[in-house]
Amino acid sequence: MSDLEDIKVRARQFAKVRDWEQFHSPKNLVMALSVEVAELVEIFQWLTEQQSQQLNDETRARAIDEIADVQVYLVRLADRLEVDIAAAVAQKMEKNQAKYPVELVRGSARKYSEY
Amino acid sequence: MSDLEDIKVRARQFAKVRDWEQFHSPKNLVMALSVEVAELVEIFQWLTEQQSQQLNDETRARAIDEIADVQVYLVRLADRLEVDIAAAVAQKMEKNQAKYPVELVRGSARKYSEY
Amino acid sequence: MSDLEDIKVRARQFAKVRDWEQFHSPKNLVMALSVEVAELVEIFQWLTEQQSQQLNDETRARAIDEIADVQVYLVRLADRLEVDIAAAVAQKMEKNQAKYPVELVRGSARKYSEY
Amino acid sequence: MSDLEDIKVRARQFAKVRDWEQFHSPKNLVMALSVEVAELVEIFQWLTEQQSQQLNDETRARAIDEIADVQVYLVRLADRLEVDIAAAVAQKMEKNQAKYPVELVRGSARKYSEY
Repeated sequence: MSDLEDIKVRARQFAKVRDWEQFHSPKNLVMALSVEVAELVEIFQWLTEQQSQQLNDETRARAIDEIADVQVYLVRLADRLEVDIAAAVAQKMEKNQAKYPVELVRGSARKYSEY
Repeated sequence: MSDLEDIKVRARQFAKVRDWEQFHSPKNLVMALSVEVAELVEIFQWLTEQQSQQLNDETRARAIDEIADVQVYLVRLADRLEVDIAAAVAQKMEKNQAKYPVELVRGSARKYSEY
Repeated sequence: MSDLEDIKVRARQFAKVRDWEQFHSPKNLVMALSVEVAELVEIFQWLTEQQSQQLNDETRARAIDEIADVQVYLVRLADRLEVDIAAAVAQKMEKNQAKYPVELVRGSARKYSEY
Repeated sequence: MSDLEDIKVRARQFAKVRDWEQFHSPKNLVMALSVEVAELVEIFQWLTEQQSQQLNDETRARAIDEIADVQVYLVRLADRLEVDIAAAVAQKMEKNQAKYPVELVRGSARKYSEY
């Protein structure tokens, strides 16, 4: 089974046995997803860009936990919407290849900021 | 190769050939991640919970694209921090199993809201 | 002095005496602002829309604190960018009056969702 | 009338004549608030901290518009929850004075990151 499939099955089961599916409307899950992402943002908000590349062990451990939370809620949301994340990414990456031709955007912060 | 690994390799290559790695500090990537999540939130903000479960085709297509964007930035962030997402999720799910014992939290919105 | 001016002066002083202005780049402040908003989102994420209108005292007290935090960071950000919030709002409201003519958008979730 | 009161009255009227109050549950408004903040984050995501202090005219104009949107939704949310923002800020600032004594936190990124 693929990584994402495996997370989907486990997260679904985790919610099911706790009878938490009643709370997992897509609307609620997208809110929860945004809260978890903000917990990641909180870690980095006062760090310089350079500091953000050299986390100490404690901060790195927090970041790992928050990345996991974001991944789990993203998978739960996709599951409720019956979206295949791997297929969605493959399709979006093709669009992005066409939208940002290497020769036009290479190294350009300006074009990039429109990304 | 696992699907998360596959996304990591492709997203890394996508950034590299465009010389965009210079913008991809963890601090910047976490901001981009939060922006993509907000594009998901935007889709659901005025919908009822029930409506959020029955998207029309156009809205669903937008949601699929945004889910892909969130996944890609999460993978980029984890890549820059040298975090293995699948391992992070496995570890976090174990913690959550211990933290939310089924018999204590089952169906409880109150406990859940502290989740 | 107006409310917003008063908050600006106090928040500026609060940061200054703690020597925290060094952390208050617009980039960092906008991240902090998003984190505070997420703390508001967290309060509402598992509530139904109806429950969100009838908070208990404890939850309401949390919401009040978070609204204050959002307001303070918004004022700090505007201060660093030398933006007059009251003038910005007046100008934006005029734009919105023109963009959403009453007769066209009245009661329409569809138009509204494009808001 | 204070400026926050003035914004409240105008924003309430704006929603009322369009029959948009039906969409303005606190849950929905907090989502809209987070989306507007993300539009601010988007402006700053690829900028360095230094660049974020020196916006060009076009970018600054976008920032002003987004700051206005955030302010309006924050006022709408507070209105629906019957919260007086100015009073909430005054109360929170007193708490913060007590929580972050100048002599203990002065210039300290560490204490600050726990802010």
